[in-house]
Amino acid sequence: MSEYNVAIVGATGAVGTRMIQMVEQSTLKVKTIKLLASKHSAGTVLKFKGQDTVVEETTPESFTGIDLALFSAGGAVSKQFAPEAIKRGAVVVDNTSAFRMDPNVPLVVPEVNAEALNEHQGLIANPNCSTIQMVMALEPIRERYGLSRVIVTTLQAVSGAGNRAVQETLDESQAYLDGKTYTPKIMPVRGDKKHYQQAFNVLPQIDVFEEDGYTHEEWKMIHETKKIMCGGDMNSNDIQVTATCSRVPVPIAHCESVYFEVLDKHATVAGIQDAIANFDGDVLQDDPAEQLYPQPITAQGRRETFVGRIRPDQENKGAFHLWNVADNLLKGAAWNSVEIAEYLDKMDLLHVPSAAE
Amino acid sequence: MSEYNVAIVGATGAVGTRMIQMVEQSTLKVKTIKLLASKHSAGTVLKFKGQDTVVEETTPESFTGIDLALFSAGGAVSKQFAPEAIKRGAVVVDNTSAFRMDPNVPLVVPEVNAEALNEHQGLIANPNCSTIQMVMALEPIRERYGLSRVIVTTLQAVSGAGNRAVQETLDESQAYLDGKTYTPKIMPVRGDKKHYQQAFNVLPQIDVFEEDGYTHEEWKMIHETKKIMCGGDMNSNDIQVTATCSRVPVPIAHCESVYFEVLDKHATVAGIQDAIANFDGDVLQDDPAEQLYPQPITAQGRRETFVGRIRPDQENKGAFHLWNVADNLLKGAAWNSVEIAEYLDKMDLLHVPSAAE
Repeated sequence: MSEYNVAIVGATGAVGTRMIQMVEQSTLKVKTIKLLASKHSAGTVLKFKGQDTVVEETTPESFTGIDLALFSAGGAVSKQFAPEAIKRGAVVVDNTSAFRMDPNVPLVVPEVNAEALNEHQGLIANPNCSTIQMVMALEPIRERYGLSRVIVTTLQAVSGAGNRAVQETLDESQAYLDGKTYTPKIMPVRGDKKHYQQAFNVLPQIDVFEEDGYTHEEWKMIHETKKIMCGGDMNSNDIQVTATCSRVPVPIAHCESVYFEVLDKHATVAGIQDAIANFDGDVLQDDPAEQLYPQPITAQGRRETFVGRIRPDQENKGAFHLWNVADNLLKGAAWNSVEIAEYLDKMDLLHVPSAAE
Repeated sequence: MSEYNVAIVGATGAVGTRMIQMVEQSTLKVKTIKLLASKHSAGTVLKFKGQDTVVEETTPESFTGIDLALFSAGGAVSKQFAPEAIKRGAVVVDNTSAFRMDPNVPLVVPEVNAEALNEHQGLIANPNCSTIQMVMALEPIRERYGLSRVIVTTLQAVSGAGNRAVQETLDESQAYLDGKTYTPKIMPVRGDKKHYQQAFNVLPQIDVFEEDGYTHEEWKMIHETKKIMCGGDMNSNDIQVTATCSRVPVPIAHCESVYFEVLDKHATVAGIQDAIANFDGDVLQDDPAEQLYPQPITAQGRRETFVGRIRPDQENKGAFHLWNVADNLLKGAAWNSVEIAEYLDKMDLLHVPSAAE
């Protein structure tokens, strides 16, 4: 195992601060850490392994001598600086959507498709949070029974829209309880035309609308799932996927109600439970008699994906429901990114091929 | 049109208070109103059309001279007193689950299956809230294109569990915002073994669990939908229905993410939108470019069912998504019950057949 100089871009954000924690807790040997952000956040002092670390402004030169750069500062920052980092020899794990659909960029959930890492050319994309936890729940089922069709409804947490979105929802909740008016400025989408109350309300819009009536979040769930589970083909028909995404007034941890059809019509609930219980990174929480099922408040702060409420569609053999919950900032973002780096390290792939070969 | 002596049983509850309002606003001519509740609530003074009305304890004799009795005080109260009311000549509209699956009892959403009222024998059951708004969204689609399959995930409001459940969630929300601990005693199900935090959390349990892993709420959505849409047969295979029900921290108005397949594979989004827009009781809110879609906060206090986010499954011809929201206390309970009475009146059926014929 080598020692690495690590940079975190977007270190002051909801995901960035958790990337610091995940690097601290990881098996990666860290020689130096560099915390990067916008000019606005430069100068902020954050802790890494108990030591004060000053956040610096991101520039191309920031990446000189860096081996691993974890990006989570928005797609524009990744587009601008990821090439600069790679040029200087850093492997980039990017948590934005900037490169996810690039056919030359592996989109990886390590427990599901670590083999795709072998093809990386210096950049690996971290999938969208809602996609990650769904493929974590479905992969053990696919491995055992084959998977043909997925219909998902998500109930996503506000932190997926960033720290400011969480603060807005908490402030708005207090105003609601006080009987005061509050004018939202962020939810459901900061850059969109209209803003709505999220406190004590549900918004069936995450990200902007596409021309076909799906939101971009729904589009991501469909095509990222295919790319991850169907050998890199974002338009594969091997698994049919369709999605409805909504935002609920929960700070952290997304819920997903997943309906799925398997190829092996002899599949059983017990077999699915067994597959999930034995899958690395999944925790089975499925005991109706004890009212045990995944919840946001019990998944928060955990790196695993929690799965329960598994039951058959009583009118369609080989069709089932499950309910999964995961911390969208950890397995959905920071932890999956750092885990990708751990796998790269273990697979001896934590270097830029063109620079090293 | 006759004039009626009307009784409301459970008049002090979340639904009961709204039944009073709905009767006030209805086309029914009310000769006298009698507000009934438990011994505990007797003596409470409520307004009916501006007049103070004292709530009385429910006894068999309460129904002497009553023409129409609206029940919403729990299944046990309905089982005890509905037969007493009918015996005394009152037509009962029951908002509990006590008689919904009785083959001799019509289960009615007036816009969908008013014809079933013709068979009533003194008692008409009001369906479960989550069922009502779903069949309201689906019936215009079934009429135009036929309907073969429904897969629904609900995001239900706390008021479905009663006024005390709402108060618990609001108190718990305040405690959460203050960083204080709070011990829930009601959610998700008052009579169940364990109670969980509902504030800023999602609970995938509504009502108790059945032996097959479905909750009773999910069971209701499946079998009530079939009974209403398939000519009274709660086990019909004409329409396949399966459901996942969850509770979100919203006071009033349920959301439903509905995936459905139609028989006519030439069905279009425009055709579905047109069918819904022209269906009595439905309001189409479906304009992604203007971020127009149904939300709990805009459905609260309204009697209509709001429908939007209509779009095709891009890999399955004849399969679509929709998102519907309705006030669970109004169309889901009080308004649908009073609307049943209005239809009975208009259809000259507001009398007990055995007593009248």
